[in-house]
Amino acid sequence: MIRTREQYLAALKALKPNIYKNGEQITDVTTHAATRRVVESHARAFDAAHDEKYKSLFTAKSYFTGNEILRFNGMMKSLDDIMNNAKLKREMYHFTGSCTGGCCVGWNSQNVMWAVTNDIDKEFGTDYQKRLEKWILNAEEKGTVCAGALTDAKGNRTLKPTQQADPDVNLHMVEKRADGIVVRGAKLMICGVAASEEIFILPGSGYKDTDAEFAVSFVVPRDIEGLTIVETMRPSDDRDYKEGWDTMETGITQAYLMFDNVFIPNERVFMAGEFKYAGKVVEYFTANYRACIGACVAGQGDVMIGAGVLMARANGISNKKFDDKFTVMSANNNTTYGLGIGAMALGGAHASGVWISDSQIAHLNKIYVATLPYETKRLCQEIGGGIVETGCTPSFQDWNDPRYGEMIRKYVKAGDCSAESRVRAARLSEWLTIGSGVPGCMHGGGSPDGARMVVKAFTPFEVYADFAKKIAGITEAITDPAADKK
Amino acid sequence: MIRTREQYLAALKALKPNIYKNGEQITDVTTHAATRRVVESHARAFDAAHDEKYKSLFTAKSYFTGNEILRFNGMMKSLDDIMNNAKLKREMYHFTGSCTGGCCVGWNSQNVMWAVTNDIDKEFGTDYQKRLEKWILNAEEKGTVCAGALTDAKGNRTLKPTQQADPDVNLHMVEKRADGIVVRGAKLMICGVAASEEIFILPGSGYKDTDAEFAVSFVVPRDIEGLTIVETMRPSDDRDYKEGWDTMETGITQAYLMFDNVFIPNERVFMAGEFKYAGKVVEYFTANYRACIGACVAGQGDVMIGAGVLMARANGISNKKFDDKFTVMSANNNTTYGLGIGAMALGGAHASGVWISDSQIAHLNKIYVATLPYETKRLCQEIGGGIVETGCTPSFQDWNDPRYGEMIRKYVKAGDCSAESRVRAARLSEWLTIGSGVPGCMHGGGSPDGARMVVKAFTPFEVYADFAKKIAGITEAITDPAADKK
Amino acid sequence: MIRTREQYLAALKALKPNIYKNGEQITDVTTHAATRRVVESHARAFDAAHDEKYKSLFTAKSYFTGNEILRFNGMMKSLDDIMNNAKLKREMYHFTGSCTGGCCVGWNSQNVMWAVTNDIDKEFGTDYQKRLEKWILNAEEKGTVCAGALTDAKGNRTLKPTQQADPDVNLHMVEKRADGIVVRGAKLMICGVAASEEIFILPGSGYKDTDAEFAVSFVVPRDIEGLTIVETMRPSDDRDYKEGWDTMETGITQAYLMFDNVFIPNERVFMAGEFKYAGKVVEYFTANYRACIGACVAGQGDVMIGAGVLMARANGISNKKFDDKFTVMSANNNTTYGLGIGAMALGGAHASGVWISDSQIAHLNKIYVATLPYETKRLCQEIGGGIVETGCTPSFQDWNDPRYGEMIRKYVKAGDCSAESRVRAARLSEWLTIGSGVPGCMHGGGSPDGARMVVKAFTPFEVYADFAKKIAGITEAITDPAADKK
Amino acid sequence: MIRTREQYLAALKALKPNIYKNGEQITDVTTHAATRRVVESHARAFDAAHDEKYKSLFTAKSYFTGNEILRFNGMMKSLDDIMNNAKLKREMYHFTGSCTGGCCVGWNSQNVMWAVTNDIDKEFGTDYQKRLEKWILNAEEKGTVCAGALTDAKGNRTLKPTQQADPDVNLHMVEKRADGIVVRGAKLMICGVAASEEIFILPGSGYKDTDAEFAVSFVVPRDIEGLTIVETMRPSDDRDYKEGWDTMETGITQAYLMFDNVFIPNERVFMAGEFKYAGKVVEYFTANYRACIGACVAGQGDVMIGAGVLMARANGISNKKFDDKFTVMSANNNTTYGLGIGAMALGGAHASGVWISDSQIAHLNKIYVATLPYETKRLCQEIGGGIVETGCTPSFQDWNDPRYGEMIRKYVKAGDCSAESRVRAARLSEWLTIGSGVPGCMHGGGSPDGARMVVKAFTPFEVYADFAKKIAGITEAITDPAADKK
Repeated sequence: MIRTREQYLAALKALKPNIYKNGEQITDVTTHAATRRVVESHARAFDAAHDEKYKSLFTAKSYFTGNEILRFNGMMKSLDDIMNNAKLKREMYHFTGSCTGGCCVGWNSQNVMWAVTNDIDKEFGTDYQKRLEKWILNAEEKGTVCAGALTDAKGNRTLKPTQQADPDVNLHMVEKRADGIVVRGAKLMICGVAASEEIFILPGSGYKDTDAEFAVSFVVPRDIEGLTIVETMRPSDDRDYKEGWDTMETGITQAYLMFDNVFIPNERVFMAGEFKYAGKVVEYFTANYRACIGACVAGQGDVMIGAGVLMARANGISNKKFDDKFTVMSANNNTTYGLGIGAMALGGAHASGVWISDSQIAHLNKIYVATLPYETKRLCQEIGGGIVETGCTPSFQDWNDPRYGEMIRKYVKAGDCSAESRVRAARLSEWLTIGSGVPGCMHGGGSPDGARMVVKAFTPFEVYADFAKKIAGITEAITDPAADKK
Repeated sequence: MIRTREQYLAALKALKPNIYKNGEQITDVTTHAATRRVVESHARAFDAAHDEKYKSLFTAKSYFTGNEILRFNGMMKSLDDIMNNAKLKREMYHFTGSCTGGCCVGWNSQNVMWAVTNDIDKEFGTDYQKRLEKWILNAEEKGTVCAGALTDAKGNRTLKPTQQADPDVNLHMVEKRADGIVVRGAKLMICGVAASEEIFILPGSGYKDTDAEFAVSFVVPRDIEGLTIVETMRPSDDRDYKEGWDTMETGITQAYLMFDNVFIPNERVFMAGEFKYAGKVVEYFTANYRACIGACVAGQGDVMIGAGVLMARANGISNKKFDDKFTVMSANNNTTYGLGIGAMALGGAHASGVWISDSQIAHLNKIYVATLPYETKRLCQEIGGGIVETGCTPSFQDWNDPRYGEMIRKYVKAGDCSAESRVRAARLSEWLTIGSGVPGCMHGGGSPDGARMVVKAFTPFEVYADFAKKIAGITEAITDPAADKK
Repeated sequence: MIRTREQYLAALKALKPNIYKNGEQITDVTTHAATRRVVESHARAFDAAHDEKYKSLFTAKSYFTGNEILRFNGMMKSLDDIMNNAKLKREMYHFTGSCTGGCCVGWNSQNVMWAVTNDIDKEFGTDYQKRLEKWILNAEEKGTVCAGALTDAKGNRTLKPTQQADPDVNLHMVEKRADGIVVRGAKLMICGVAASEEIFILPGSGYKDTDAEFAVSFVVPRDIEGLTIVETMRPSDDRDYKEGWDTMETGITQAYLMFDNVFIPNERVFMAGEFKYAGKVVEYFTANYRACIGACVAGQGDVMIGAGVLMARANGISNKKFDDKFTVMSANNNTTYGLGIGAMALGGAHASGVWISDSQIAHLNKIYVATLPYETKRLCQEIGGGIVETGCTPSFQDWNDPRYGEMIRKYVKAGDCSAESRVRAARLSEWLTIGSGVPGCMHGGGSPDGARMVVKAFTPFEVYADFAKKIAGITEAITDPAADKK
Repeated sequence: MIRTREQYLAALKALKPNIYKNGEQITDVTTHAATRRVVESHARAFDAAHDEKYKSLFTAKSYFTGNEILRFNGMMKSLDDIMNNAKLKREMYHFTGSCTGGCCVGWNSQNVMWAVTNDIDKEFGTDYQKRLEKWILNAEEKGTVCAGALTDAKGNRTLKPTQQADPDVNLHMVEKRADGIVVRGAKLMICGVAASEEIFILPGSGYKDTDAEFAVSFVVPRDIEGLTIVETMRPSDDRDYKEGWDTMETGITQAYLMFDNVFIPNERVFMAGEFKYAGKVVEYFTANYRACIGACVAGQGDVMIGAGVLMARANGISNKKFDDKFTVMSANNNTTYGLGIGAMALGGAHASGVWISDSQIAHLNKIYVATLPYETKRLCQEIGGGIVETGCTPSFQDWNDPRYGEMIRKYVKAGDCSAESRVRAARLSEWLTIGSGVPGCMHGGGSPDGARMVVKAFTPFEVYADFAKKIAGITEAITDPAADKK
């Protein structure tokens, strides 16, 4: 039986309170102003799984048991499986307008680690994959929402982990015991943690032999002893604390996870020092992640199209007047979506059975994910008018003020719909383009400059130069002056 | 004697409290959280006027009296005068990081109305220019900060003023008396009003003969009887109410000005029904305004370069690594600045002596003002890293929390500078790119689609087709099929 | 047995001479200056089919007979089949630097007509698919190079076929006989005809009931009685007639095909008046064609990267200095390639078994195909320097001039390679970017504006507006003002 | 009296034949197929100087004599003077569709050398400016068309002049005699030489003390003893030799100038070893040149708009359908024009009286000159359709072929105008966008990467970082890690 929204909320309520924001401890994430919205976003995935219209996308059959499970708990072994990852994400954005990290990063992490534990076990005779299988079976059965975390605090960006003044700036094992490991450090800017029950930890980078203590992967309950979670700020996030329409019902959060000598039992550890496979984790993770996030920004872009349509009409203008702009927006959305699908189709199955997308095309997609949505937002603001651009309309409190609220309502009215609908559409547009619904498409999942390096690395310059030489009828060798000097 | 910051602040304190935000009346704009920042921004113009380094830019000699005045109270009659308008604005952004509308729109308005009253008086034998001269002389002497307002509430965008369900959605005269006029309506999204002492009102559009009641221009004290001002929201504006570095010391505001049967004495009225000149106001205003705002976004872009340099270093990376991105940012800044200057140089003096920039190039510049800064912001975010992109770091309260503040400070530390400096640079970058420092470069001063129409209107298609015909050796007439059909 | 280059050339020589250029009849396309290069391009596909390294890509197993055939004669029924179409095209560009239309349009046409004849036969009980099968079996066995033709002369673009002053501007049946049909009209700008043995004709547009005579598809021998072929000009095509390196050994041609009452026997006719399926032809053709052409421009872009590498070195500069530009070029190439693959993966099998790509993503890809290569070319020119940009170096004759040739050779020498290699690399770059190797990526396979319309048509505006409404909490209906008026 | 077209042509005929192309010596540049078009282009400037409509732009009053002169022989000492340089160039493109280098580079050279000789004479007590004055007085009186040349052959781009295997790859003095200097070397890719009577030589780069022999400036008659000129190829230049409309009547050429021990008498030498001023030549030249060339590409872009209008109509479509594309084209044209004007207005007068534009904005303009026209061309091709894109229509010979010419004419007919006009408009579009009318906007006047370096060099990073620090409230010093290491 697929878990319901109510079961999910009850599970969140039962967790211990280790999340903070603005100096305040959050005792119930499902009701606290700072977190209830991210919880609502994730709860909508459960609604969809029980909705006939969306059920086939939101549920799947377990490769292990054949049982019906939530799709985001399952394995992705075929092109169809991974394409459905993208499709599910795009649809989730339609429901929430923003990111639902808990239906995403943990899912990708479990699949990537399925491949990597396969490789590690083969070389070292370890039993990591067995441990992972056990955890997955439980998650599938329970329908666990599991966030995922890669990004370390990192410290000085030009120094290696062992060169840092404070070794904790990269999460590391401080002790390896017979029954588990003890870790210290932090994972920063982690999405959707407040809506998750567990968190999957991956190493933050490829590591060398001197960095074995940093090559670590495991999964923890969100409320594990020793873990302190502080939610970060976001644009306009103080509006979460107010009533009215100045913010939305859904949303996303990002948190600092700070591990202070946390003990992880062996059955939840999937890498513990096998440094040469840390790079594989990053490679597989980014290939699949960057292929799929194109669907996320597409989904949000779709909602921006919808918001633009509403704003045009609320301003009294036919949305057809903006057809050219909407076409560019739609083109942008489908570029990151379609190119991601292309990366998937050019990928193939890993020895473990897990599907890995094509790295070059996936990283290329990241470049677009880090640029096109900015144009889409700009166009959404251009269509909506000045009321949208800087959120330029009085607050919900002013709207209702007995002294001058009536005047405000009178002057906000424009098209055929109510003034309230106009201000709601404006707030939505603001939230999507310059507010707390803005997802991290620039640096989320890594920076575009890193992606550019991968695109370059996979370009076979000498091969292409040879093709050119043959077509031009050049027969002598023409080597690079720089290469000569070595 | 040029007025000091202190004199300016004292004058603001003396005004009557007709400004509201979030349902609260603001009794002292110089200290209230919602307005003290915009006041601080404007106060820095007074500092500059007394600073030997900036004095020659911030002061000028009066064309009327020959006295030394604040430059933004003066007339712009030469190419140098108007170029100095642009230079002053760019510099102001360097001091504040954001818009200072009170040193800007009123200044442009008084100059534009100098030209238009000249034309009206010539045709109708009125004495508008005399009235204006008297007001200017007083403003020059006093050093008045005067905001300016064009944008009406507008109502349904596809209907004309007289077709609107509620005629008040465009500001209009409801009574014309011997000693003055009575007006009702609203001007929306007006910048810097809380820091201004007076407000210059211009008609919001070109008008036809049926619209005479809407063709009205005047100047009012900010606290005039019958005027209610409600400040609008801006991204992250609730941070204004908190202590610490999560917002800046400077800033801009935008307000709804609602006129409820306000009486304006004749000496402050400069247009009262001369509808055929309303279009001239818009034409001259936009030509000069859109030539000059390129300097504004350039100035903010300069600060974004500075913020990027700080962030790179604070992350432990040499800013030289981002030279390509900084070069694009600098190119963007100087494009809107330089093209605006080009519009000025291609302009010329109006019969009244006032310099009017070239319309086509000025409107072209608006297109860039509505697009390039978005790329500049994106690059600022790309350089700064994830901490910048969505403001992804805990709040000032969390930073100081006794339970976990120390951990946060430990994990935020990266480059050679202090963790505090890093978070301050990050907040600045966030504020500039996605926070309340974001100016309205898309719709401020009108929409880019309107600018595109002007660019097209000034393109002589038939002339260019004739050049092409001659070069191609075509001798027959080739007319447009559409034109044929008429 | 796969046909050899020699067999292919012999077959071309045996055709009757119905091709003209510059007022001259071409008696042997394999040796005439105007056509030998396009023949050489296509001959290289036969080389590849016999080369162990490329064999698996250039040959396939027949779905009909199980025999090994040239891939471009086969059916495309799986995602792999159509992805291999794209891969083959990209590789062909590596061999030729330009288009090889004869390995392409006929191939797509036979597949598209397989689907459409399936639909027509089902509705009308005709036997078109049987006829087509017979033709395909023969082509597979023989290894026929078959061009394809859609674009009619069209006449006045705003008039329908039956409204045209001259009905021949769209190819049409002028007689329907028991044993076949007689057609008149022209297909313009048809690629690779001079290198082909047969030509597959498709209707040029979707047609209505009044246009039945234009809804016609068939395949003809290139030298069929009544068909006159005139090759069009291309940039710098007069260089084809000269000796030396000022042009390349490979190339593409485009021709006017003029049918003057040509009789087509029934066995070669696959549509003859079934107007309602003409639209299907266009729909299926463009979906697959526009998905695949991304690979073509990618392949040419790869050669531009190679040419840029050679030019940098020939100028004495390390190509690494241009890494940023090469990365953009590579990104552009892989965008059109990867997005095309995405369109394929999002497609599916038609009832006839033929794979049809996703229309929206395929048309989106066309927009990129019509824009990105222009940037790639610009970068190739930027890297190569002034010698490349306008072909700015003396001719082969001047190079060898006894009076001053030595001086030219002295001054062309720059990097470590010979002056000859430098000028060859420069000519290649010129040819690729501004010469006769430039393929028609703007209008080839239809115009980008048509593609934009498809992208828009497939965007569900009302659905997206509903998602936006739900997120914004808007409950009232908000309809489009324009829609209201109907 | 201003010289007439006839006088100009007669002067060209009288020159000795030292120009070659395709192995052929050109005895009369005014009639030879390879050069008559560039001569026609320049002759149109003389027509304009005698046309009442254009006279005020094409003539000026001499600063020396007060006489009426051709504007391109005069000094540019005021902002108006240099703005008129830009305006004249834009107009010349309207007449010719292409570059007229002889009305341009020599003009700029004489002005730049006026400033530089002023500086040299001041330091060294030389009399270079006097010599130059004498030459200018003569040129003004005669109305001399004078080309200009900077670009050396350069050899290996990573080696300095003295490190080159062959010192001649940079033009240099091989002997300094009492009565003059002897030079050897080459200037490559020099525009409009065939239409000029004299050539102004500038040093190709800034030079160091070891490079004194390369720091040389002088002016020579085009047919000076020892100078061999070979015209380079251009796209489709062989069409120059054919009759009919496949090319235009106007055009531009680029040549290799090879100096083989040429003696220059002192009175024509303006720099001879003063290496430290070679950099000033480059600085002043590029500042003014790059400010002005924006007008050139604007002028050609205007003709592309005209060609697009004609093509739309000739295709039977209203040009209004392409308003959005035309607006972008017009915006592009006016961007390079207006930004160049901005660079001029931000410049100022040199001590010698000559106006020097602002370097940063001028170089920024070069970046746009090297990018925007590519988009303008692409749009011109997009509007024109497939017939334009690759010149895809049969040749003039085929058009007139008795066997099939009639069919071609029948199928080319589309809109209301004649088929001939349609093909003429198509050839014009092809010539402008991908033919021999393409000017070198990428590398002409230097490469955009050099311009980018200047834009960066003029960006005060530390100043901007300080502004950012103050706004962010940062008080500690934050230095660049890289800078620290030194």
